[in-house]
Amino acid sequence: MVKGHDIYDATAGVETAARQAGIAARGLRNATADRKNQMLLGIAAALEAHRAQILDANADDMRRGSESGMARSLLDRLSLTDERIEGIAAAVRHVATLPDPVGEVVRGSTLANGLVLRQVRVPMGVIGMIYEARPNVTVDAASLALKAGSAVILRGGHAAASTNAVLVDLMRQAVADAGLNPDLVQTIDAYGREGSVALMRARGMVDLVIPRGGAGLIQTVVRESLVPVIETGVGNCHVYVDRAADLQKALAITLNSKTQRPGVCNAAETLLVHKDVAATFMPQVLAALADKGVTLHGCEVTQKLAPAGVAVVPATDEDWATEYLDLEMAVRVVDSIDDAVAHIRAYSTGHTEAIVSEDVAAIRMFMREIDTAAIMINTSTRFTDGGELGLGAEIGISTQKLHARGPMGLTELTTTTWIVEGDGHVRK
Amino acid sequence: MVKGHDIYDATAGVETAARQAGIAARGLRNATADRKNQMLLGIAAALEAHRAQILDANADDMRRGSESGMARSLLDRLSLTDERIEGIAAAVRHVATLPDPVGEVVRGSTLANGLVLRQVRVPMGVIGMIYEARPNVTVDAASLALKAGSAVILRGGHAAASTNAVLVDLMRQAVADAGLNPDLVQTIDAYGREGSVALMRARGMVDLVIPRGGAGLIQTVVRESLVPVIETGVGNCHVYVDRAADLQKALAITLNSKTQRPGVCNAAETLLVHKDVAATFMPQVLAALADKGVTLHGCEVTQKLAPAGVAVVPATDEDWATEYLDLEMAVRVVDSIDDAVAHIRAYSTGHTEAIVSEDVAAIRMFMREIDTAAIMINTSTRFTDGGELGLGAEIGISTQKLHARGPMGLTELTTTTWIVEGDGHVRK
Repeated sequence: MVKGHDIYDATAGVETAARQAGIAARGLRNATADRKNQMLLGIAAALEAHRAQILDANADDMRRGSESGMARSLLDRLSLTDERIEGIAAAVRHVATLPDPVGEVVRGSTLANGLVLRQVRVPMGVIGMIYEARPNVTVDAASLALKAGSAVILRGGHAAASTNAVLVDLMRQAVADAGLNPDLVQTIDAYGREGSVALMRARGMVDLVIPRGGAGLIQTVVRESLVPVIETGVGNCHVYVDRAADLQKALAITLNSKTQRPGVCNAAETLLVHKDVAATFMPQVLAALADKGVTLHGCEVTQKLAPAGVAVVPATDEDWATEYLDLEMAVRVVDSIDDAVAHIRAYSTGHTEAIVSEDVAAIRMFMREIDTAAIMINTSTRFTDGGELGLGAEIGISTQKLHARGPMGLTELTTTTWIVEGDGHVRK
Repeated sequence: MVKGHDIYDATAGVETAARQAGIAARGLRNATADRKNQMLLGIAAALEAHRAQILDANADDMRRGSESGMARSLLDRLSLTDERIEGIAAAVRHVATLPDPVGEVVRGSTLANGLVLRQVRVPMGVIGMIYEARPNVTVDAASLALKAGSAVILRGGHAAASTNAVLVDLMRQAVADAGLNPDLVQTIDAYGREGSVALMRARGMVDLVIPRGGAGLIQTVVRESLVPVIETGVGNCHVYVDRAADLQKALAITLNSKTQRPGVCNAAETLLVHKDVAATFMPQVLAALADKGVTLHGCEVTQKLAPAGVAVVPATDEDWATEYLDLEMAVRVVDSIDDAVAHIRAYSTGHTEAIVSEDVAAIRMFMREIDTAAIMINTSTRFTDGGELGLGAEIGISTQKLHARGPMGLTELTTTTWIVEGDGHVRK
């Protein structure tokens, strides 16, 4: 890994990479789905064939990580095993089975004057990914971008630099073996932080930057990038248990939303309970959450309703705003659905908001008043996921309103062109 | 008009406006189409009923404009007449007739596990418009935003400030008369340049900024805005006349593309002619263009092919990159369709590119190789227009790849929400 590049070197290097990516992307623009799938299968095979090399590089990264005192949860995300490499390869093969979004006719018609219109999906071009030290994202992002007809420039967390270097080399070789331009997949990890900055400034050469990681990373990219960005993933998700809730469903949904996989963006962070059911529901749900190891931060009423032996620490305003991404939950009793809506409006990050209710009027009100990427009705927040919602795969979950909102699959990685066919038509 | 606001005043003022717009937008979020249409008809009626007041304010702006030496073309865009006010009111009434995009189900399905999915169009929220001294844009933008369920914050060119103030007052009154919150329509013209800056910084309070105007304005907004932007309108559009072109169609299309309305973004700026037809076509087209008053900038071959009496000045690299927006055209002879594609790739702004050819292979190649918002086949570039393409109306023409590409109608002013209905569903 080259260190100490200054911003001029990094800019020159990243711009060269972006230009090469642009040239490579032109070659992929009109590749058939068969051709792209063959390339993806080649990538999957290459990863499996070179497991030892990948694991060696990963061991380097892991050793550096341990030595620098990296947290165990981060080391776990960084770590690869035979099984994980198989999982990554299987995910690439799965992308190969998905329908090709390129060429899809989105709209079309023949106008009164005889002009024939089609709005057709075409590749985005060059996609930049800025993410953390998770080697699986390196391959996931590349395979989705390639299937969608775009080149990808990868900037992973420096802690995974050795693993990513090997993964990118293997992918480039597989792309070349499929008769396509290896510059479709490039890493700019060697340019360090300055490389990220240069990527974000490469407007006109890079068509889209997707940040994937923690709130800090995403906010930096959103604020600094001149290239269009899709903001992803920060989820301060709420479960609201209405007074008309089926409390058994509410219990299952709350537990699943919080504890099934607490470290991801679609996990719930705050539970809101209508006061009419609080006396019945709160003791059950607090005990069940505590039983799963969840640390509870509650409002005053919640604290009073905690059963013996269940600790509830006082919730602060900061708790309502926190995406714990861990076995922690903020809990509040609300006087009405209006108060629940007001709370969610104040603290939502626009990712996923759930209501548990058997009352159609309450559900209708919740749907109308909450502005978010996904609304869950009597359903766990954990379903906001490209795989679960039938998109086949996802490159991230958009929490912005432009272009894509919610899980982004292959379709969301494309753009469109209007094709207008006439026979000498002119405007009058 | 308040002058000399500093950035702190402007920020406070614009943020207050944005928050009020956000509150107002919530009230419009679930308004029925009938309700919104009634409001729009009220706006149209108010504009017609208060013509004298509008014309007075416009006369003020025109006098200030003349005194400050404003160009005649700009004065023409600033100027209102009885007829133009009627045209503006008619456009608002037309927006009332268009289908409401809010509530449209974009996708939907029932998953294997019984979850019922719908992706539904919902309003964007608060839309900022930054534009030049064209009072019609004030009303156009407001009516489209309102119909799409959003509040609008307007920042028009200072030269139109008096006219815009009256138009905004009239619209606010009509909104209030329809029983809706007048803060749905606001102007921040009083805060001057600092107001624009504050609007672009109001991330989280404003959902989208659309700049509409010249290249300088648009580039400033794209570079400075922290709020997501849709880049609009710069069109360095090309007409390529292939060796297999029907030269009669080519002549009509070239003339229409260049001269039917030269001051707009979908007018053609450069003509590329295949060398095999140049000797026949060039003298005709140059004479016809010159006859329409077009100043011609040609490559060496073009200069040689100019008929007697037709002046062709030598084209520079700058000419190929210039959006004249006037009766001027750059003309070049190319050796092949590949050279035409290479030229367009080098100079295109991704707006509209036209090919004139009867050869299906040439057309296919052009469509595959050119990455742009709109491709015209044997058709004038002037058809890239929301009205012409059946979108009903347009707020601008996007030349970026995210969210919307090409003419933006009501649909493009909305976002979506995933609604996921279960019956106690949890993830396994």
